[in-house]
Amino acid sequence: VCIALTEPSGGSDAASLRMKAETQGDTYILNGEKTSISMADQADVAVVFARTGTQESRANGISAFLVPMNLPGISTTRFEDAGQRAIGRGSIFFDNVEVPASHRLGDEGQGFKQVMQGFDYSRALIGLQCLAVAQQSLDETWQWLTERQAFGQQLAAFQGLTHPLAEYQTYVQAARLQCFYALWLKDCGQRHNAEAAMNKWWAPKLAFDVVKQCMLAHGHTGWGEDLPFAQRMRDVLGLQIGDGTAQIMKNIIARECLLH
Amino acid sequence: VCIALTEPSGGSDAASLRMKAETQGDTYILNGEKTSISMADQADVAVVFARTGTQESRANGISAFLVPMNLPGISTTRFEDAGQRAIGRGSIFFDNVEVPASHRLGDEGQGFKQVMQGFDYSRALIGLQCLAVAQQSLDETWQWLTERQAFGQQLAAFQGLTHPLAEYQTYVQAARLQCFYALWLKDCGQRHNAEAAMNKWWAPKLAFDVVKQCMLAHGHTGWGEDLPFAQRMRDVLGLQIGDGTAQIMKNIIARECLLH
Amino acid sequence: VCIALTEPSGGSDAASLRMKAETQGDTYILNGEKTSISMADQADVAVVFARTGTQESRANGISAFLVPMNLPGISTTRFEDAGQRAIGRGSIFFDNVEVPASHRLGDEGQGFKQVMQGFDYSRALIGLQCLAVAQQSLDETWQWLTERQAFGQQLAAFQGLTHPLAEYQTYVQAARLQCFYALWLKDCGQRHNAEAAMNKWWAPKLAFDVVKQCMLAHGHTGWGEDLPFAQRMRDVLGLQIGDGTAQIMKNIIARECLLH
Amino acid sequence: VCIALTEPSGGSDAASLRMKAETQGDTYILNGEKTSISMADQADVAVVFARTGTQESRANGISAFLVPMNLPGISTTRFEDAGQRAIGRGSIFFDNVEVPASHRLGDEGQGFKQVMQGFDYSRALIGLQCLAVAQQSLDETWQWLTERQAFGQQLAAFQGLTHPLAEYQTYVQAARLQCFYALWLKDCGQRHNAEAAMNKWWAPKLAFDVVKQCMLAHGHTGWGEDLPFAQRMRDVLGLQIGDGTAQIMKNIIARECLLH
Ligand SMILES: Cc1cc2nc3c(=O)[nH]c(=O)nc-3n(C[C@H](O)[C@H](O)[C@H](O)COP(=O)(O)OP(=O)(O)OC[C@H]3O[C@@H](n4cnc5c(N)ncnc54)[C@H](O)[C@@H]3O)c2cc1C
Ligand SMILES: Cc1cc2nc3c(=O)[nH]c(=O)nc-3n(C[C@H](O)[C@H](O)[C@H](O)COP(=O)(O)OP(=O)(O)OC[C@H]3O[C@@H](n4cnc5c(N)ncnc54)[C@H](O)[C@@H]3O)c2cc1C
Ligand SMILES: Cc1cc2nc3c(=O)[nH]c(=O)nc-3n(C[C@H](O)[C@H](O)[C@H](O)COP(=O)(O)OP(=O)(O)OC[C@H]3O[C@@H](n4cnc5c(N)ncnc54)[C@H](O)[C@@H]3O)c2cc1C
Ligand SMILES: Cc1cc2nc3c(=O)[nH]c(=O)nc-3n(C[C@H](O)[C@H](O)[C@H](O)COP(=O)(O)OP(=O)(O)OC[C@H]3O[C@@H](n4cnc5c(N)ncnc54)[C@H](O)[C@@H]3O)c2cc1C
Repeated sequence: VCIALTEPSGGSDAASLRMKAETQGDTYILNGEKTSISMADQADVAVVFARTGTQESRANGISAFLVPMNLPGISTTRFEDAGQRAIGRGSIFFDNVEVPASHRLGDEGQGFKQVMQGFDYSRALIGLQCLAVAQQSLDETWQWLTERQAFGQQLAAFQGLTHPLAEYQTYVQAARLQCFYALWLKDCGQRHNAEAAMNKWWAPKLAFDVVKQCMLAHGHTGWGEDLPFAQRMRDVLGLQIGDGTAQIMKNIIARECLLH
Repeated sequence: VCIALTEPSGGSDAASLRMKAETQGDTYILNGEKTSISMADQADVAVVFARTGTQESRANGISAFLVPMNLPGISTTRFEDAGQRAIGRGSIFFDNVEVPASHRLGDEGQGFKQVMQGFDYSRALIGLQCLAVAQQSLDETWQWLTERQAFGQQLAAFQGLTHPLAEYQTYVQAARLQCFYALWLKDCGQRHNAEAAMNKWWAPKLAFDVVKQCMLAHGHTGWGEDLPFAQRMRDVLGLQIGDGTAQIMKNIIARECLLH
Repeated sequence: VCIALTEPSGGSDAASLRMKAETQGDTYILNGEKTSISMADQADVAVVFARTGTQESRANGISAFLVPMNLPGISTTRFEDAGQRAIGRGSIFFDNVEVPASHRLGDEGQGFKQVMQGFDYSRALIGLQCLAVAQQSLDETWQWLTERQAFGQQLAAFQGLTHPLAEYQTYVQAARLQCFYALWLKDCGQRHNAEAAMNKWWAPKLAFDVVKQCMLAHGHTGWGEDLPFAQRMRDVLGLQIGDGTAQIMKNIIARECLLH
Repeated sequence: VCIALTEPSGGSDAASLRMKAETQGDTYILNGEKTSISMADQADVAVVFARTGTQESRANGISAFLVPMNLPGISTTRFEDAGQRAIGRGSIFFDNVEVPASHRLGDEGQGFKQVMQGFDYSRALIGLQCLAVAQQSLDETWQWLTERQAFGQQLAAFQGLTHPLAEYQTYVQAARLQCFYALWLKDCGQRHNAEAAMNKWWAPKLAFDVVKQCMLAHGHTGWGEDLPFAQRMRDVLGLQIGDGTAQIMKNIIARECLLH
């Protein structure tokens, strides 16, 4: 399944999306373009967000549809990406695609709220996913520091290497606890928009920085594709953007903090 | 009570302390100088760490004593400090101070191990103490952003203010969870040296940075002593040094990570 | 001489200042309050910015006056400040103060433009002033690293101390060159608003961070008032706010970069 | 031409290199392995550093040779790299390669000193090269901020984007001045080891961070390979390692600062 929300005119301001879903008897006619959709050309089914209300109604005019990707009028393209090539990203074009009304998910105008709740969940998961990559890289690097020598000593003797790693180890552990905390709030049925947003902006950024530091601690071998660091950096980097950028997350955190 | 460990020759390398405790029948004779001791001139009783073994035995030659501060031969001075004036710091001089053997805490040569275990606890508590100051400062600042105007808008409208605060809010929450985690490990009877060290280097540093950012968000009024920020910065700053510096904490974290 | 621009309603948005200067024959009558003015209670003369035009005319409605501080109707207060006590800050109240028209500096409505040009100069100087404090602190600290021992070695042997200092040394040198660059552009008669703004946000912030790091490298002695670090931190901190905050500087830099 | 210094046993501690050059009449016989050499499989000629003295003589036992790459006994491999593929990196194996003594560059045992002086030059140039990529990315991004809209405004309206870019603009300009400064010292015949080391650790790191921030400001399109950011990040990253790592540079800066 793929989630088709972003459009060429912008992903951050999803509430202003333009793709149209117009009723015609018992069907909706979908017209428009989605872009930057993960697994666009692999998914069998897409959850598509489209406007059933006016442009002015913003978030309240958006509905969600479950769309089989083999319907007539659907075409896709594939992007050349910096990473995550196994997943892939692309555009989806909808040209008078007919979707039965029964494929609408939830009530009309409820689509946006739904996807946003889903994000509070996926943001914590993306966080954990990135932190696992970071921790793995740290583990390998601590190991490497005991194996490699320079200037007649183990690399482990150089604080110029160990201190930055100790800092990152601190952050990775703290960020992981914070992801658990958001999921725990969710389980308790408590508001956790700010917490999920914290997970989403920090963990992918942190993971990227950690993997980079681990790469550098490996000297020139770290930079080669034989070791996994370059690949990990590319993959993690995309997750700083997908599911919402850092700026949007900080807007959410500020909004929540200003409420109280 | 005050804890007298640090000496003029150095606090980080506590295992090499020089203060002597020599047995004479049923008493120990204490000779030497302790410095930078919190509440040196206020405490009724001091826990004093002194060498009962050889200098070469390092940590294994150190014992702890409960010393009433009104014993003959004890004198104190008081420092002029940047902050924490209610607590105060000073030196303690021991000139042939006679302490009954019954005042020794634990077995001979066990003193150092004891204080180090105590540190794993106090480091998490220092963390929480600093983070409380940070959170209070953040709360006041979010509030201020809704009250103060500039350029015809609430300050809350400026991402140049809200985004750094959102980042700090993220860190403060994560660091707090990390302190709880260390305490929880302790409750479970599990090893938590690295975790306590993480609490100790990060939380006081973070709190300092947070309070500073909050001060700056208050413009010129933040800098005056009418608001609490300058005072808080001074107080929190001392806690980056007391109970062990950041460098020593990172050495501990690295040591633990290199073990596994 | 003191420069009286800031008012209780805000210093960043100086163009909206409210203090009134109304013509009455050959004199101006000044009414209003200035606050957070350096040397408010020491200066013999003040350069006062006041509105001769409408509130809507913003910057174009502001004129500058040279005001002897002993004129009837002027009173001052003094703030309790975190630092720079030799200079001092306070408020100035103007209650129907009569100033001869000949004391107006430049043409009516030109006052704001003038002060802003002055700022492009003073911002580079503030930068250099802060960086001198930073460099001095670094010099003392490099020296200290060769004098103090821990764990049987010179502190200079610990990269956990030397590497952060090496980074700061890099920044301090670069920031100094940047201040010279702004002054050189000024000498060449070239636009240097962005460069002066860079000097102003970065150098005071950097100097504060540097002095703090130097303090920490001195262990517990660094925190006492016997060494100059605490004092330097307090002094430099005020310069992050006076003459324009970091946010305002970054707005200027962005504005200039977006022009080209 | 390629520069062959690094060996499998380590690049940072170049003074301990093991490759042997033994005299046999009027020729030197080269034996050993060089690795991570830029243009290893493209260069016609290599400057090869090899040991003519004992292992203990360290830097003083190293000589430099101009070696045509088509001599018998030379073979090369090519690495799969994260970036800079146009340049390429690889290993060079020397199996009893005979080089005429006239191909020795400078006197015996002078090779190391020579290459180190060359580094003081190349480090400033690498700095400028990286900063050019950074400035170009900034220019494109300032432009983009005026073209792209979100939430009904130009991106240029969001300080969450402009303030980090203004900070980076400050650093890039300062770092560039610092590179010029090192080159100017060189022209004046003055010592500039520390300055060149500053250029080398900071500029490539900064450029990487800048390009990343520029990529993120472009949202999902930034992450695709249609835009140049991913490519630039990969290329610049290698320059954080080649010609000496950040840790080695900070060691040099600290050494120089501790001298004075
Ligand atoms: C790897 C990857 C996978 C993705 N997968 C999917 C997917 O499966 N389905 C899907 O629908 N989308 C997907 N996306 C798209 C993603 O959700 C959007 O890229 C993202 O929401 C940003 O939108 P945009 O790219 O249009 O950038 P824009 O919205 O144009 O933003 C451009 C820049 O402006 C900033 N900005 C925007 N508004 C503000 C504001 N108010 N304040 C401050 N800064 C602001 C942004 O942070 C960003 O830096 C994916 C993206 C990536 C990179
Ligand atoms: C507010 C305050 C309260 C205090 N209260 C007490 C108290 O109640 N009782 C008590 O006994 N002590 C107390 N201290 C002292 C404190 O424990 C010591 O200051 C601290 O342990 C550091 O020792 P030092 O000051 O001698 O610095 P040093 O040990 O001389 O260290 C100087 C610098 O070198 C660094 N360094 C040292 N060794 C290494 C290494 N191996 N690797 C890298 N860097 C290294 C340190 O991090 C530091 O930056 C207090 C200090 C402060 C500031
Ligand atoms: C030590 C010191 C000496 C001083 N000396 C003088 C003096 O001699 N003469 C004089 O006239 N003034 C002086 N000042 C005052 C100084 O110029 C002002 O404090 C400064 O301009 C900020 O104004 P404010 O304090 O009213 O803060 P505000 O303008 O209320 O700003 C509050 C916060 O909001 C932020 N902010 C405001 N607008 C924006 C925006 N558009 N975007 C993003 N963030 C924004 C600011 O950066 C700040 O963090 C001095 C101040 C200090 C601390
Ligand atoms: C893109 C690229 C191009 C290159 N081109 C060339 C070339 O043309 N010719 C050539 O000869 N070489 C070249 N190199 C190799 C480069 O010079 C070395 O990679 C570099 O000097 C580091 O050596 P190393 O990889 O063996 O790492 P090591 O020396 O094994 O170092 C591993 C890690 O330990 C750290 N470390 C080592 N010693 C210390 C210390 N004393 N204190 C603190 N930390 C320390 C390092 O900083 C590094 O992070 C290139 C490398 C790259 C990535």
